[in-house]
Formats: sequence, C-alpha cells, structure tokens
Amino acid sequence: MAIEHPYLLFLGDAPDQLTAKTAQGIAHWRPDWCLGQLRLEGCQADLGLPDMSLEAAKEAGARTLVIGVANRGGVFSDSWISVLEQALMLGFDIAAGLHNRLIDVPALKAVAKQHGRQLFDVRHPDREFEVASGSKRPGKRLLAVGTDCSVGKMYAALAVEKEMQARGMKVDFRATGQTGILIAGQGVSIDAVVADFISGAVEYLSPANDDDHWDIVEGQGSLFHASFAGVSMGLLHGAQPDALILCHEPTRRHMRGLPDFTLPGLQACMDANLSAARLTNPAVRFIGVAVNTSQMPESERAGYLRRLEDEFDLPSVDPFQGGVKPLVDRLQQV
Amino acid sequence: MAIEHPYLLFLGDAPDQLTAKTAQGIAHWRPDWCLGQLRLEGCQADLGLPDMSLEAAKEAGARTLVIGVANRGGVFSDSWISVLEQALMLGFDIAAGLHNRLIDVPALKAVAKQHGRQLFDVRHPDREFEVASGSKRPGKRLLAVGTDCSVGKMYAALAVEKEMQARGMKVDFRATGQTGILIAGQGVSIDAVVADFISGAVEYLSPANDDDHWDIVEGQGSLFHASFAGVSMGLLHGAQPDALILCHEPTRRHMRGLPDFTLPGLQACMDANLSAARLTNPAVRFIGVAVNTSQMPESERAGYLRRLEDEFDLPSVDPFQGGVKPLVDRLQQV
Repeated sequence: MAIEHPYLLFLGDAPDQLTAKTAQGIAHWRPDWCLGQLRLEGCQADLGLPDMSLEAAKEAGARTLVIGVANRGGVFSDSWISVLEQALMLGFDIAAGLHNRLIDVPALKAVAKQHGRQLFDVRHPDREFEVASGSKRPGKRLLAVGTDCSVGKMYAALAVEKEMQARGMKVDFRATGQTGILIAGQGVSIDAVVADFISGAVEYLSPANDDDHWDIVEGQGSLFHASFAGVSMGLLHGAQPDALILCHEPTRRHMRGLPDFTLPGLQACMDANLSAARLTNPAVRFIGVAVNTSQMPESERAGYLRRLEDEFDLPSVDPFQGGVKPLVDRLQQV
Repeated sequence: MAIEHPYLLFLGDAPDQLTAKTAQGIAHWRPDWCLGQLRLEGCQADLGLPDMSLEAAKEAGARTLVIGVANRGGVFSDSWISVLEQALMLGFDIAAGLHNRLIDVPALKAVAKQHGRQLFDVRHPDREFEVASGSKRPGKRLLAVGTDCSVGKMYAALAVEKEMQARGMKVDFRATGQTGILIAGQGVSIDAVVADFISGAVEYLSPANDDDHWDIVEGQGSLFHASFAGVSMGLLHGAQPDALILCHEPTRRHMRGLPDFTLPGLQACMDANLSAARLTNPAVRFIGVAVNTSQMPESERAGYLRRLEDEFDLPSVDPFQGGVKPLVDRLQQV
C-alpha cells in the first residue's frame, strides 16, 4: 500500500474545524503534497488551502482524494458518495481513515473497479502479517511512547523526522495510525491488526535498513492504558527501539476515556517501557521528553520543562512550541 | 456462542496420536461430554473411546461433531467434507479449532444453512467486542500466566477448576484458546481478536459475577515472548486477576519458536506480571507455581518443586503428576 500524492483534501460537510483534524495534520506535515481542499455546501472547516473542484485539482496533477474528516455516525451520505464516484471517474484514487470502509460501499467499489482506481481504507490493514521473529535487524529505531493516548506521540515523531531531514540524516517516519498513514502515504494501523501479529506487523513496517538509518516509529496508546496496553506492548517489542521519547500532557486529570485511572508518574512510565523494551533491544534508552504544554498557563511552561530536564537529565521540549532540536542533538549521541 | 454437547469426536485420518491432541484434551477434561470417536480409514490416533458411526452417535444423543485434529496443510480433504456434510444432514452442529474455517467451505456452509445447523470456527471470534472499560467488576478471577508459551497454562487452569468444583466452590473455566473453547463449550480465541479489543474481549469473556465466584481464566503466551507479549498484556489487564499462577517448563532451553531468547527467571516473570496486573487490580498476588516436570528426570522432580516452595514461599506443584490441591488451599485464603 502506497498512496500517491499530490493530494486533494476532501473536507465534506464538516460541521467544525475539529472534525477536519486529520486533514489539518496532513496539510501541516505535507504541505508540498496538498494542492487544495474540496468543501461541500455547509462545510465549516477551512485549512487555508485553495478551494478546488475535482476537475481543477486533476488538471493541477492531484492523484488521490484524501478524506480528511470524520463522517457523522459512520454513515456515508449520498452527497459524499456522488462526489467520490465522480472523483474515481476522473482518475483519482481515494484514501480514507474512517471506521467504515469505502470498499464496503458497493457503488464506490464498482466504479473504482471499472476505472481501475484504488480505494485505501487505511484504518484497516489490507494484508496479513507474520508472527514476529524478535530477531534484531540492522538500522536504528526511535519510538515515541506515552503516559496516555493522544499526548502528542505522532506530532513529536514527525517533528523529529523533519529536524533529522533538515540535518541531512537518513530517516523515515513509520506510521502506525490512520492520520500518520495519510501523512506518510503508507503504514500499518497497528491497533487494527489481529492480536497475534502486532509485533510482526511492526517488524514488517520497519524492516532492516542501513546501519546509520533511523526509523521514527509512531507510538500508540500507553503501557498504562487499561484498554490498549497490549497494543503498546506489541509495538514496543516489534519496534526494537534503540531510543525512546516519552510523550506527556501534564494537565490531564485521568487516562483518556477512563475516568477512574490517573496518569502514571513519568519515572514509572519510563521504567516500565525500558523494562519491556529490553526484551528485544537491551541497549534501549530514553533520549528525551516531549510535552504538550498547550493547556498549561504560558508562564509555567518553561519552568515545567526545566524541572523535567533536571529530574531526568534528558532534554525536555514542547515540540509544537519550541521544536525538537535538543532531542535530535541527544539522538545523534546514541 | 455455546457449543452443545454431548460430542462425537472426529479424528479424521490423523497420522499419529499427537495430531489428535485437541481431541485428547477434550476427552480428558470432559469425559461425560464425549460419547465416542469417529475415525476414517487410515487413522492412527485412538482416544480409547468407543468407535461410533454418525448414525449411532446421533441415536445416542450426540449434538455436535467436534473436529479434534489438525488438518494437513490447512486443506479440507474430500473425504472429510463428505463426512461433515453427512453429519450436518443428520442434525449435528460442527465445531472446529482449525486455522481455516468450516464456514469458508461453500458446500458445508450451504448444507448447514439448509438444515439449520451451526458451524463453530472457534479459532475465529464470531462477534465484535467493546474497548475495555478497566472498571473493576464483582466476582473473583484467577489467571494462569507463563514464562513461555505452551508450558501448561490451560492444564493448570482446568485442574484448578476441577479441584474447586470438587470442593463445592462456585467456579467457571474461561477459555481463551481453541482447545480450551472446545473443552468449555464456549470462550474467545483471544489471540485472534483485533488488537484494540484484547482487554475488552476478556472483560466480555469473564463478566461480573457473584462475590464468591471464581473465574479461572486460561492464559496465553508470556510477557517475555517477543512475538506474543501484547496478547498476554491485554489479557492480564482485561482479566483483572485477584490471583495468579505462574506456569513453567524448567527444561526448555529457549522461548518457543525463538531460538535466540532464553526463558526469564521466575522471580522476574512474577515481578513483571504483578507490576502490569496492578494497573487493573492492585490487590493481585501469586498463589502458586505450576510446573510441567515431564521432561525432568523423575528423581529430580520433587526436589525441584521443594526448592521453588522455599524460594518463593508459594505452593509449587506439577498439576499432571500431583494435582493442584495445595494451590486451591492457598486460593481459599485469598
């Protein structure tokens, strides 16, 4: 699975900006891939990209229509389907990170087949995987792990990739979730893999590489999340990380979706990840902390990060506010 | 999914006794459910049950034909299919723990539908699960965990169930693998669940119960198995065990299927399981060690178990050689 760019980003009839979060991530991280946005009547989201018709985007070279919005109630409305059909007829592939599948809409499946186009349901793996071998493979790997879900693991990983590219290092972002896959153009939605093959899918996703090449692997969940820790564990073993970044959101009062569970301490979270990760890479170490400080008072942010640096002797940054240069400096010492 | 008994055990043309391992487990643990065995020409396996035709077994009250053998190369031979069709026509349901599915054989699917019979592919979950809530639910739970795969977790769990039944305790074995499901008549093949729902599937499998009721949950894999630890982790969190049994095979030289990985120490394995299990049940504790000593010289077995008792201050038994009474004694103190 490799999704071709340039993209036209489909925002549908998104009722607000948040609904188009996926599209926003793609436009932010892959501006060169995004020619424009396609908005239907009533759309309240705006990425600041040129509004383009299917025809104009095709003329400009777009290859894939990317559905960058959640659809309401998991249902494809008729207004969506007719636009998507038209896109296929014009020669677009379509990619979506929705819970329900494009391929399950008979009209879309038929038109795609007729016109030789591809439907990418990136949330659903389109292949089978092997059981993980656990064998150490060449190349270096960094994995972003978290105290919780949705604490900025993907953002931190993409920021590290960008900084390493700027330094001329050999690097690839390896996507493990739907937004990351649309940003990378490929990847595996690791939480949708059959349980036996979690680690094996990660071995497939991040194969052997040059000794001085880094895969920056997107993390998922948390070893301390009572719903998803199995995914995080399998991902950790399959990634065989040489380096870890701990991601954290310090104002969160409980684990995402679990009101009865408080967040783990940072030291406990590091210890648990190191302990588990050593099974497949005894040389693993943390190289920094990435904090989403957006919910903290501005006056407290710098002090908080400084305290983390002192406590853990690790560079501690907010990737969104201040970039990740100190993390990559430390990485280059690994 | 509830598979009705009594069973007729189908051994097909099994080339040796080992191929009929699943059937043997069912006959051992559920002798009252097994009316007889059905063997095709050339079958080299024998469970010591009466050989019965489909007609004779039906006459005797059998409800389900259970395929208790692995099939060669994942292919259903024609000789199998005609027997299975005949069984459906006679009114049997069919249950199998094979990699390939009965339901994917068009002839079987058609005949089953026509005769209103059910095909149980127990290795493949037949429903969707919720994401785990992590909320503590009433009832007590014991989980068998292991230093490795295939170290006797299912055997230990079933032995504990049997001993507790003998003492008049409220108890259910909860199966998480295909042999266990055929033995219990229900369950969830937990390694075949989509990764996001591992813990949720276990919450479904072992629901709220009476305060003095014990679920004995079959373990899978090991936190120290580089291929499958994600499954073991999700199972541990979903089971919320009050009590753990550590299962071990002391002569094994490396982790199953992974020649480069040695087995963890028993203390390290207990520590890792306790540490992870405390997330959803802070009161978790080990109540014993179950060792498969069959590969040890007979003269060393008792001494080995005594040394474990001294080292960990826990009853240590070989469930197959000496039963599990000391484990249940300790359990009754929880």
